[in-house]
Amino acid sequence: MNQPLACVERVAIIGLGLLGGSIGLAIAEHLPGVTTAGYDADPAVRTRAAERGLANDICDTAAGAVAGADLVILCVPVGAMGAAAGEIAASLAPGCIVSDVGSSKQSVKEALHRALPGATIIPAHPVAGTEHSGPDAGFSSLFHNRWCIVTPDDQTDPRQLTRLVAFWEALGANVELMSAEHHDLVLAVTSHIPHLIAYTIVGTASDLEEVTQSEVIKYSAGGFRDFTRIAASDPVMWRDVFLSNRDAVLEMLGRFTEDLTALQRAIRSGDGDALFDAFTRTRAIRRSIIEQGQDDARPDFGRSDHGD
Amino acid sequence: MNQPLACVERVAIIGLGLLGGSIGLAIAEHLPGVTTAGYDADPAVRTRAAERGLANDICDTAAGAVAGADLVILCVPVGAMGAAAGEIAASLAPGCIVSDVGSSKQSVKEALHRALPGATIIPAHPVAGTEHSGPDAGFSSLFHNRWCIVTPDDQTDPRQLTRLVAFWEALGANVELMSAEHHDLVLAVTSHIPHLIAYTIVGTASDLEEVTQSEVIKYSAGGFRDFTRIAASDPVMWRDVFLSNRDAVLEMLGRFTEDLTALQRAIRSGDGDALFDAFTRTRAIRRSIIEQGQDDARPDFGRSDHGD
Repeated sequence: MNQPLACVERVAIIGLGLLGGSIGLAIAEHLPGVTTAGYDADPAVRTRAAERGLANDICDTAAGAVAGADLVILCVPVGAMGAAAGEIAASLAPGCIVSDVGSSKQSVKEALHRALPGATIIPAHPVAGTEHSGPDAGFSSLFHNRWCIVTPDDQTDPRQLTRLVAFWEALGANVELMSAEHHDLVLAVTSHIPHLIAYTIVGTASDLEEVTQSEVIKYSAGGFRDFTRIAASDPVMWRDVFLSNRDAVLEMLGRFTEDLTALQRAIRSGDGDALFDAFTRTRAIRRSIIEQGQDDARPDFGRSDHGD
Repeated sequence: MNQPLACVERVAIIGLGLLGGSIGLAIAEHLPGVTTAGYDADPAVRTRAAERGLANDICDTAAGAVAGADLVILCVPVGAMGAAAGEIAASLAPGCIVSDVGSSKQSVKEALHRALPGATIIPAHPVAGTEHSGPDAGFSSLFHNRWCIVTPDDQTDPRQLTRLVAFWEALGANVELMSAEHHDLVLAVTSHIPHLIAYTIVGTASDLEEVTQSEVIKYSAGGFRDFTRIAASDPVMWRDVFLSNRDAVLEMLGRFTEDLTALQRAIRSGDGDALFDAFTRTRAIRRSIIEQGQDDARPDFGRSDHGD
């Protein structure tokens, strides 16, 4: 019971894009005693991954990559997690931890449990990234001072959880634990809905017949341009985010729309008091957010976030 | 017909807050031959304005300030423009230009024409500001490289228009001409709706029972925080903006809501193709906006904008 916890020794990385590649490079830098094996479905990516040294061994099959691994990290789009898990099911070592990096957690957790009954599944989500993708995008410091959310449940073996947390902390991340359900709600409001709204308003402005795009750009300082700054992320990733986090996103959207409609009614009816009250309240909230955000901003979270 | 246009010689500034004070200081720096007279309804502001030298003469009445002026600039909240114009009606010199700095233009134009029938009214809107207000907030470089939108109509005397444009260019602004109606549409989409949406989502996030404010802040990098960055502007100003630009704002809100609802339906029905198409289209738009925005950003428009 009081044996020291052994660090992971061999990590398999499935999917060698921005995140998978960065994990491989980060392990080489921070955990030099750990060996890595990598796999990607695209042979061209495998070739490039080998050239960049994203892992010690680049394997031609997912099954080959996970052989002997005590930690497998699935770094494929969330819509592909189930299929990826299916490919490795027969080759997992006993006691191997299966984890991931996906932007929604409940759907991934369900897909992994379906594909790998009885396996040690501990989903995770490092809130980090850039607008780039592919085997050339990764770098070893991607996770420095980033939040990594790990989502255990009642069944999770606490010793295995501790090993996974220690792994992410070794890569420089600050780990937070929460349930998969809570993760999906938090990310819906802090990331998914803001992106959806930003995408929407850019489209709305672009469709206007009466206002030109150059006018929108010219007078966008301080308002519209803040929306466009949200990183230009991959449409495939975002499609999968919204399909997989559907319930929390729809819940948040419903609330947002109710609140917006209330303000719309106040505008239509000329209810200046209601508007003043709403703006005063949110200004106070926003100021405290900004004040606290200053502290959170120092490690520079948002600068290269790929949109989580 | 080919007489050289005379520069304005005496400018009256009604309202000595951020904008009025900055105009006074900018004139002192860029148009040293021009004399200025200022008035504010608040005696404490008048006292402070005199201490700061926001104008050559600080008067105890608006009527006194506009005596002998060939340009009057109303720098009061847009909801107060009509009343301010009423105070000066009897004291305007013949041929004096009456202008303003308000964030909506149609309502101001109507209020001024009602209060000052027959006067030379040329509304304007310098798209500049900071989150601060009052007589201590102004500074002479506020308008450097900022856009100043001037909104003449068919009746506007072209020579007077030229004098007003020259005035704003002397203060360092780049002037654009457009109709008051078009101004209100452009500002609705580039500024007013983004602010309304940002205010709304901050309120929605704050009302969640299940997600704490510190969680929202912690995981807000790259998404939510962009919304909170929109400057903490004065609730009175924004109340007046939405009350005065009601029609354009409601039009834009309607379009935005339709577009958001379409995406919501795609999410609810799991229509991945529709989502992918929408995100691909807006990503292309956004990238060109960002590319063009880089050029517009160099003079640093948005950094100290108070929310227009």
